[in-house]
Amino acid sequence: MNKNPRVAIVGATGAVGVELLSCLESRNFPLSSLKLLASKRSAGKQVAFRGEMLTVEELTENSFGDVDLALFAAGGDISRKFAPIAGEAGCVVVDNSSAFRQDADVPLVVPEINPDAAFDHPRNIIANPNCTTIITLMALYPLHLKFGLKTIIASSYQAVSGSGQHGITELENQVQAICNGHPVEISTYPRQIAFNVLPQIDKFDANGYTKEELKMLNEGRKIMNLPELNVTCTCVRVPVYRSHSISCVAQFEQPVDVEAARACYDGKPGVALMDDIANNVWPTPLDSTNGDTCYVGRIRKDIAVDNALNLWVVGDQVRKGAALNAVQIAELLVSRA
Amino acid sequence: MNKNPRVAIVGATGAVGVELLSCLESRNFPLSSLKLLASKRSAGKQVAFRGEMLTVEELTENSFGDVDLALFAAGGDISRKFAPIAGEAGCVVVDNSSAFRQDADVPLVVPEINPDAAFDHPRNIIANPNCTTIITLMALYPLHLKFGLKTIIASSYQAVSGSGQHGITELENQVQAICNGHPVEISTYPRQIAFNVLPQIDKFDANGYTKEELKMLNEGRKIMNLPELNVTCTCVRVPVYRSHSISCVAQFEQPVDVEAARACYDGKPGVALMDDIANNVWPTPLDSTNGDTCYVGRIRKDIAVDNALNLWVVGDQVRKGAALNAVQIAELLVSRA
Repeated sequence: MNKNPRVAIVGATGAVGVELLSCLESRNFPLSSLKLLASKRSAGKQVAFRGEMLTVEELTENSFGDVDLALFAAGGDISRKFAPIAGEAGCVVVDNSSAFRQDADVPLVVPEINPDAAFDHPRNIIANPNCTTIITLMALYPLHLKFGLKTIIASSYQAVSGSGQHGITELENQVQAICNGHPVEISTYPRQIAFNVLPQIDKFDANGYTKEELKMLNEGRKIMNLPELNVTCTCVRVPVYRSHSISCVAQFEQPVDVEAARACYDGKPGVALMDDIANNVWPTPLDSTNGDTCYVGRIRKDIAVDNALNLWVVGDQVRKGAALNAVQIAELLVSRA
Repeated sequence: MNKNPRVAIVGATGAVGVELLSCLESRNFPLSSLKLLASKRSAGKQVAFRGEMLTVEELTENSFGDVDLALFAAGGDISRKFAPIAGEAGCVVVDNSSAFRQDADVPLVVPEINPDAAFDHPRNIIANPNCTTIITLMALYPLHLKFGLKTIIASSYQAVSGSGQHGITELENQVQAICNGHPVEISTYPRQIAFNVLPQIDKFDANGYTKEELKMLNEGRKIMNLPELNVTCTCVRVPVYRSHSISCVAQFEQPVDVEAARACYDGKPGVALMDDIANNVWPTPLDSTNGDTCYVGRIRKDIAVDNALNLWVVGDQVRKGAALNAVQIAELLVSRA
């Protein structure tokens, strides 16, 4: 990897693409050039970056000849088609989709957890994990290092921006309709999301779990290199615009202690305690919105499960759950160049 | 108990009181008279019941001499003061507050689960359980009869009407403010509830759980007569107006089977399956709002916990979680008179 790579963003005009641009700019990423790629429909759009206007180009098979590093955020179908083309052209791809996450020759990376894995990318593709998984693991990995993680039992409270701009617009429109006494229109979600919660995210698998729920199992095992990890999860959409929350029982190999657990976060980047119940302090999705930090609160010794801690974690799923993590992977590659 | 009791509602003008009135009317409860009691502030208000206007009277120590059955829904302090007075006057109290729920000489009753307990009330006080506990147990008790319930691991999604009219008004006002670009005012909840979720309901106990979370443990043990039952719970307020949802892992003594679990609900009153994932059918809070039935969906064999089912339950916490359950207890008493 070049110390000052030529960078491309694929899906530059989408929700995560816009956030990728923002992360590259705010973190002063040492790129030598930036190419914005999107569908033919978005080609020609002007986008500001570091005080200049860049023109969005149409994504084609020939887009990657002069690119060292491509950040993909255009969905699984685009990734499946174009990431291998980019990789074969010598461009390293950091892919936000789930297309390659379980491939044995594609690393799945959270820089705070398994940074070294990012350098073993024989196909020049590195996968960015699922948003809810990243946020949950940011809270659990420091505890794993101390106590040895065995089982995760989680329920999520996921924001509508996890569905992209369509999800945001759907919630806005439904709330406006209800406030004005108009009928509610449903298009993005199968049911009304305003003032309601929906216990389905992504499609169902044969075992009755959704694919979103199984990501925490399969991706958690791969990222932490814990092939025996047990995970059960129910993923629920809630009428929150941004930032996911996870209610979590984490069972460990070793006996747990709350004060020792809290100390696990000392000096850990990207994650912080917000946990002072004597003063009713605990994190909410609004606390992490538009921020880089995942917050952990409500840490307590679980009263029903042996060797377990019960905790609550929030994180901005567009940032740490997607764009920020991808840019951090890119920074990691450049840092060892 | 008289077959046509003289009934009083204490807290007749509150959220649960209004619903008690509605349940008595819609279920054609065989009362011979109805007295509406409330604070001095509400005395004199006119309330419609069965086509007549009733005048709210001020609650005093002398309110119960001509009452056979009193439904209390005015909070713990009022119950602690006036329920013993009513009981000593020979009036049977069904109390919605948490004041007496753990008293050994006060039964805690869900008519579908432990109806016989209602008849052993030496102090003439019968306690109505916590809303989230009732709804969760409506889903789990039929499974317990088949498999033997051992552990409940739950996360809740609780509606603002659980905080009474103040909660509803707070959410309405905050949503209106945000839609109109005005600053959000916070009074009922410690943080903004509109487009946010709050992982605290009720005060904290010494062990880091909230009192709301411990109710499912203590009340679940008492109602189902399972002193060894394990329960862990995280209770979360969500921006939903009405109906609570619970994401639940239930571990049993016996091996579980999903089809056998589904059959447990056949013919069971007050609870129904809404579970057809092939057609994306699962219950949401809107499905149970203003209804008497608790709905169960997402039933699946848990992939992380032995002998466990994972499921999702919703129920209207003002009805089955409060007023309806209280009226059902009253019906039970009258039915055996």
